[in-house]
Amino acid sequence: MESLMMNYPLTTTTILEYGNSVYHYKKIITYLPDGERHEYFFSDMYKRCKKLANALTQKLGIKSGDIVGTFAWNHYAHVELYYGISGIGAVCHPINIRLSSSQTEYIVNNSEDRVIFVDATLVPLLEKIAPLLETVEYYVLLNAPKDFKTTLQNTIQYEDLLAEQSEEYQWPILNENDACGMCYTSGTTGLPKGVLYSHRSTYLHATNIITPNAGNFSNEDTLLLIVPQFHVMAWGFPYLCLLSGSNMVLPSSNLQPEALINMLQAEKVTKANGVPTIWLGIYHTMKENPPKEKLALKEYLVGGSALPKSLIEGFEKDFGIKGVQAWGMTETSPLGTVSRLQLQHNHLSNNEKLDIRAKQGFAFPGVEIRIMTDEGTLAPSDGNTMGELQIKGAWVINSYFKTNNLDSFTADGWFKTGDVSTIDPDGYMEIKDRTKDLIKSGGEWISSVALESALMAHPNIREAAVIAVPDQKWVEKPLASIVLVNKEKNTTAAELIAFLDREFVKYQIPKDYVYLDEIPKTSVGKFDKKEIRILFSEGKLK
Amino acid sequence: MESLMMNYPLTTTTILEYGNSVYHYKKIITYLPDGERHEYFFSDMYKRCKKLANALTQKLGIKSGDIVGTFAWNHYAHVELYYGISGIGAVCHPINIRLSSSQTEYIVNNSEDRVIFVDATLVPLLEKIAPLLETVEYYVLLNAPKDFKTTLQNTIQYEDLLAEQSEEYQWPILNENDACGMCYTSGTTGLPKGVLYSHRSTYLHATNIITPNAGNFSNEDTLLLIVPQFHVMAWGFPYLCLLSGSNMVLPSSNLQPEALINMLQAEKVTKANGVPTIWLGIYHTMKENPPKEKLALKEYLVGGSALPKSLIEGFEKDFGIKGVQAWGMTETSPLGTVSRLQLQHNHLSNNEKLDIRAKQGFAFPGVEIRIMTDEGTLAPSDGNTMGELQIKGAWVINSYFKTNNLDSFTADGWFKTGDVSTIDPDGYMEIKDRTKDLIKSGGEWISSVALESALMAHPNIREAAVIAVPDQKWVEKPLASIVLVNKEKNTTAAELIAFLDREFVKYQIPKDYVYLDEIPKTSVGKFDKKEIRILFSEGKLK
Repeated sequence: MESLMMNYPLTTTTILEYGNSVYHYKKIITYLPDGERHEYFFSDMYKRCKKLANALTQKLGIKSGDIVGTFAWNHYAHVELYYGISGIGAVCHPINIRLSSSQTEYIVNNSEDRVIFVDATLVPLLEKIAPLLETVEYYVLLNAPKDFKTTLQNTIQYEDLLAEQSEEYQWPILNENDACGMCYTSGTTGLPKGVLYSHRSTYLHATNIITPNAGNFSNEDTLLLIVPQFHVMAWGFPYLCLLSGSNMVLPSSNLQPEALINMLQAEKVTKANGVPTIWLGIYHTMKENPPKEKLALKEYLVGGSALPKSLIEGFEKDFGIKGVQAWGMTETSPLGTVSRLQLQHNHLSNNEKLDIRAKQGFAFPGVEIRIMTDEGTLAPSDGNTMGELQIKGAWVINSYFKTNNLDSFTADGWFKTGDVSTIDPDGYMEIKDRTKDLIKSGGEWISSVALESALMAHPNIREAAVIAVPDQKWVEKPLASIVLVNKEKNTTAAELIAFLDREFVKYQIPKDYVYLDEIPKTSVGKFDKKEIRILFSEGKLK
Repeated sequence: MESLMMNYPLTTTTILEYGNSVYHYKKIITYLPDGERHEYFFSDMYKRCKKLANALTQKLGIKSGDIVGTFAWNHYAHVELYYGISGIGAVCHPINIRLSSSQTEYIVNNSEDRVIFVDATLVPLLEKIAPLLETVEYYVLLNAPKDFKTTLQNTIQYEDLLAEQSEEYQWPILNENDACGMCYTSGTTGLPKGVLYSHRSTYLHATNIITPNAGNFSNEDTLLLIVPQFHVMAWGFPYLCLLSGSNMVLPSSNLQPEALINMLQAEKVTKANGVPTIWLGIYHTMKENPPKEKLALKEYLVGGSALPKSLIEGFEKDFGIKGVQAWGMTETSPLGTVSRLQLQHNHLSNNEKLDIRAKQGFAFPGVEIRIMTDEGTLAPSDGNTMGELQIKGAWVINSYFKTNNLDSFTADGWFKTGDVSTIDPDGYMEIKDRTKDLIKSGGEWISSVALESALMAHPNIREAAVIAVPDQKWVEKPLASIVLVNKEKNTTAAELIAFLDREFVKYQIPKDYVYLDEIPKTSVGKFDKKEIRILFSEGKLK
């Protein structure tokens, strides 16, 4: 029987209108690429979104369903683009600025971006490939000085574009299942693949991340968005801040640990997001140069890679700041699980608690997860049985853009993540590895993630990445690439083997260690194991 | 452009599956009508819901779209009915047990309930009208002794019904816009009107109530559901507990202050809901007989009527327990606003803070509110301009059941609440009165709610209800009916007029006071001003 409730679409415009209505006095603070601090209210952003909507439709000829690219850092204009572009029914497509030229070219042509909004400091990256971009009609320059020079054709300054426009604009009523945003996977295997988020998925994802069991964000919070807006829509934070009434702090290109610590202090940031690499950097910098006053920061939400136990422990012991592990993918909007302790863990030892907090955690309402074994059976939730993590839910894709490739989906409609995981009796999922990173040695599986996490707990190791390399006897064996904190201090293979001996059985422990100045990283800051394997195959890892 | 996200309907079954998957070990604790304590896990409830689904479809012949009534207290079987009935695509219709026989008869016939699940202790109420109920085929008896006798025809014991059934049941895939639940307005004016909630509205309402700015419920909470399940689905709490992983405590008919205080203590309840009358009773009982240990209760969420400032203050000062005012209606699922302080209020005095907390508060994401003046213009958010409160959103009705009456809706699609309100610059809405309860004296408006709240702050007044009565000079004047805490202690009209003089101007202060043993209340515990007016017109208020 049909209900008698209002039809009230869940759209990014619903979010924008709510933020402007209830939290118009909340702030968006940007540290611009030139270091200048910019601050304005949600209500200012709202008015400029309407100007932008007029500019997009009247000046640039953008229509509902068109895809509009951004090539930009995290800043207030980029937030305006999120709401302005999707508000007129077009699709906001933040392009990852850290990809190779050929990947960027592929993505822009594949998505058919009609306009690209580009930060002045990033213009050189687009100038190199602009002649190859087939669909781009305009480049709109963000944060550019008046006399900015570029070889890009058809450029407009963003402020000039807005200056001409009226603040009056009537948002169209949108279908919540239409696309509002687009991101490409980082393409660690094969070509990047496009993902089209809907208004509805974006709204539901944001609403759920606010809840206490997840991010726990309220109108008493000030959030620092370290995760780039070009990386899975900054995990939905530009949306959820308007729903929760949290102030937003945006670092643009000021991502050095010192700069971020300065923002945490100056803006009294209470919560932040970021990949482990960022938090490792912040931690080590704070250790070397402890802040004079205790930070207001209560929690940092981490995803993208496993949060090392040693980092969780160190941050909490040294600075009273809690690391919260989350998990997600471009294909899942991204957040799907979070690891927070519950009442039944109260009696556990500190170390047992850390083990749980270092897991990827339990599913949010709105998504479901399961583990399928190699034999195609559902794995029991015993915390031991490994298999492929599969997920379905309200913010999970059912297809990639412009492909009919169904390899990533099961016959019964679940998305295959490619992660090898377990789920424990309390529902906590733990990623053991990417399917392709798992090491099979003498017929036994070895988790590279577990080894890396353990190695990074060593006081003289900053980063560790473990890959499988061929072995005559065991078929594969683990090889650890490590970055030392203090290179003067010798940390031998023998010492590390002894160090790992407490946690791992003999066959799992790497015998081979190579010392690097830095672990190669992907465009989103994860250890780039593809690159490490290439270095190894070229004989460059010794 | 169509997005590429999964179709994942938001249904009560989605909630049930989530609760069972992630929080299977959480508890539902019932204090049954006979005083016995019953406890089981979400996973037990889940299995019994599947048995119930089999019984409904196979034994009772219930089909998708059928309406199934309940006439019951808050207990675990009633929770099973919520999920089991809506899970098969039928509509769960909790009938208010506190209505008159003729209203109950009207509601059952109007909704066309095919089956009624009825608590043994409530059977006498239905026996009286059973011959008049045209559509009811079966009565299923809840919490009835084996040898229970009744004149009702076609009765089955609930446990017998489930005992025969399998725990295997495949939930159908439902349309989220279909009805899952039904409630009737309490009918203080005219006949009760049916409201049909959708799966989607129920899901979105529950999700939003969990967020920190609203109810702030997590898996560390144990919730006491004092609001009856027959009163706007217990404010959605049986749903949200499964999403937030909160234990549920259900009092059934044990609603005496002493019984509730006992549950708060024994079950370490952290949060609870209820109308002000309930909390007034608990407060006065705790004052007379303070609990030996501090309660685990942190907050109580209040709606249905205005929470008197004096109660907020007393509970917090005496017991460290925070009262949180919320507002809603049957037509709005019910919760639409909540009043919590924000950072900008930090500098205010205690009394100013209380003034804000006693307001009905700001809108949740998913609903929008506005005030329309008598002249049909949008009232400014100045905290002063009064007008009718209007609301729209994802859990607001667009029509009543079986009526084409559009009087309650504006041409541009907002629901007209019938409440006279203001909205302040921070977005906090305050109900000044029901349109029909507002007093117009000498051409000036007087808020009965404000007078009641002020009177109830008097140390010797337990309850106060103010109505308009005819006056030769001023057309209308206020008349206050009051219930004293200590009847031995004389509290004169002169004393009360002096008491109100600090807060009100002379023409607003009632000159006439009548002393009652109890204020007449509606079926949902609100002051029944219709009844008070009848008493007055019959000359019974002296």
